[in-house]
Amino acid sequence: MREFHLLQRIYQRSQSLPPPVVVGPGDDAALLALDRSDLLVTVDQLIEGRHYDASSTPIDLIARKAIARSISDIAAMGGAPTCAFATGALRDDFEHADELFDSMSVWASHWRAPLAGGDLATTTGPTILTVTVLGHPHPSRGAILRSTAKPGDGVYVTGAVGGSFASGRHLTFEPRIIEARYLCNALGAQLHAMIDISDGLGVDATHIATASGVRIEIETAAIPCAQKTPNWRTAAGDGEDYELLFAAAGDVPTTCPDTGAPITRIGVVCQGAGCLFVDPHGQSHSASSLGWEHGAN
Amino acid sequence: MREFHLLQRIYQRSQSLPPPVVVGPGDDAALLALDRSDLLVTVDQLIEGRHYDASSTPIDLIARKAIARSISDIAAMGGAPTCAFATGALRDDFEHADELFDSMSVWASHWRAPLAGGDLATTTGPTILTVTVLGHPHPSRGAILRSTAKPGDGVYVTGAVGGSFASGRHLTFEPRIIEARYLCNALGAQLHAMIDISDGLGVDATHIATASGVRIEIETAAIPCAQKTPNWRTAAGDGEDYELLFAAAGDVPTTCPDTGAPITRIGVVCQGAGCLFVDPHGQSHSASSLGWEHGAN
Repeated sequence: MREFHLLQRIYQRSQSLPPPVVVGPGDDAALLALDRSDLLVTVDQLIEGRHYDASSTPIDLIARKAIARSISDIAAMGGAPTCAFATGALRDDFEHADELFDSMSVWASHWRAPLAGGDLATTTGPTILTVTVLGHPHPSRGAILRSTAKPGDGVYVTGAVGGSFASGRHLTFEPRIIEARYLCNALGAQLHAMIDISDGLGVDATHIATASGVRIEIETAAIPCAQKTPNWRTAAGDGEDYELLFAAAGDVPTTCPDTGAPITRIGVVCQGAGCLFVDPHGQSHSASSLGWEHGAN
Repeated sequence: MREFHLLQRIYQRSQSLPPPVVVGPGDDAALLALDRSDLLVTVDQLIEGRHYDASSTPIDLIARKAIARSISDIAAMGGAPTCAFATGALRDDFEHADELFDSMSVWASHWRAPLAGGDLATTTGPTILTVTVLGHPHPSRGAILRSTAKPGDGVYVTGAVGGSFASGRHLTFEPRIIEARYLCNALGAQLHAMIDISDGLGVDATHIATASGVRIEIETAAIPCAQKTPNWRTAAGDGEDYELLFAAAGDVPTTCPDTGAPITRIGVVCQGAGCLFVDPHGQSHSASSLGWEHGAN
């Protein structure tokens, strides 16, 4: 009964959604009229007690993070979000379902991915939200994969990394949609491979290296560490940064003029395999020796 | 670590997927090249202890039901599935993640919706699976909504209803994709509104009535009750049937020639509101008086 009434309220506030949504929540499926037929699709989960602390996190920031994580995946492909779908399996004593879905709807629209459908249920376990986001790749550059980094490329990161959980930034980060579009526009075919840093710089650089069949070497002194991050190992291991990590040939701007976000060259792509960190003493540390090559969050 | 290795295995068996999948699992998002730009999207959840009993249900049938529920939503819109995305938040002592995702992949492909992406995590609570399915509406009839039933329409149901949990049919039902396509082909613009029966005949008929602003009257003697269903109240209240319930004008075939599934006329659409059951003694029972109008599963 409770779920039904909640769903009704969600439907009511979604009666008229912008294109591409023709039929929104309330039927068996949403109907979209896309203006292009190349489509990006990503789905991610947000789990209470793992991705956020239920006792200390405002409902609006839980909703924000659930949406932002999937929006960030679209950014990592160089894409623009189109619409979103959310499910909630809510802990059965959770009292803020309506506020949560309201906030998810607001944040989804904020990032131009109006919430066009979803499902709501209760669970005896931790609350679990999933968000599916659809988007379109950059119209001229196309989708930016992980698997197309090339030896000779520079390796770059937007913003700063480290301490995302400790600082609370994991709840308030801005998905790098604008920066991704700028990089596609500015670099075109020079922009070879990209990922968003969710598992940590060390793990995500390894993902690019493995997918591309190359080695990535990162200078630890070049890593832009977020404030209060004690050292490069913490910065490269923490994760949940949602910054863009990319490999590109040729000249790359040092800032995104649209947002002011810094773009920092931190390393190079070489022939070989895996990911290597080189410290100022010239010592090499493999991501695997640091415990990062196989980790995932 | 465990999740990462599982995801790797999932990626490995998804290296080459059929169109529309250009980039499958393993990147930040999937890339699809659709051949049409009108798209259906649905997402549904399958929750351990609610939608299936973990101690008695084979892994393959858990996977089957997770996929089939969302495929059935596409059928209810008169559509054809295109591809699917799955998430699993698996109870942390669950030992069959690989088998579960293998089976989901097989069932998704079986219904022509290859698994193109997803996410895997663990939870301290019950296992929760979500399946997003994309599809295309019928090319000439378009999407069949709940909201377009008209007074004078007949009301029809495919197959038989009732006792789905008791008989185990809720784990082995065949989503009515073929029947939905046949109805779109055979009836065209005469096919006015459709839904799949997940919440129960009484609730889902009420959903059509409410969305369409009409009253639906059902003759209890006409309801095709599944074997061993004790009476029409059970048959109309049980739910999880995943049969098609539709409203159509004019003549309607009594069977789907492609599958042999019976199509039974059970009532009419009238002016008014709500859903009424008329028994052989001429007595009327409103769905709300039977506790059905507001229920949802």
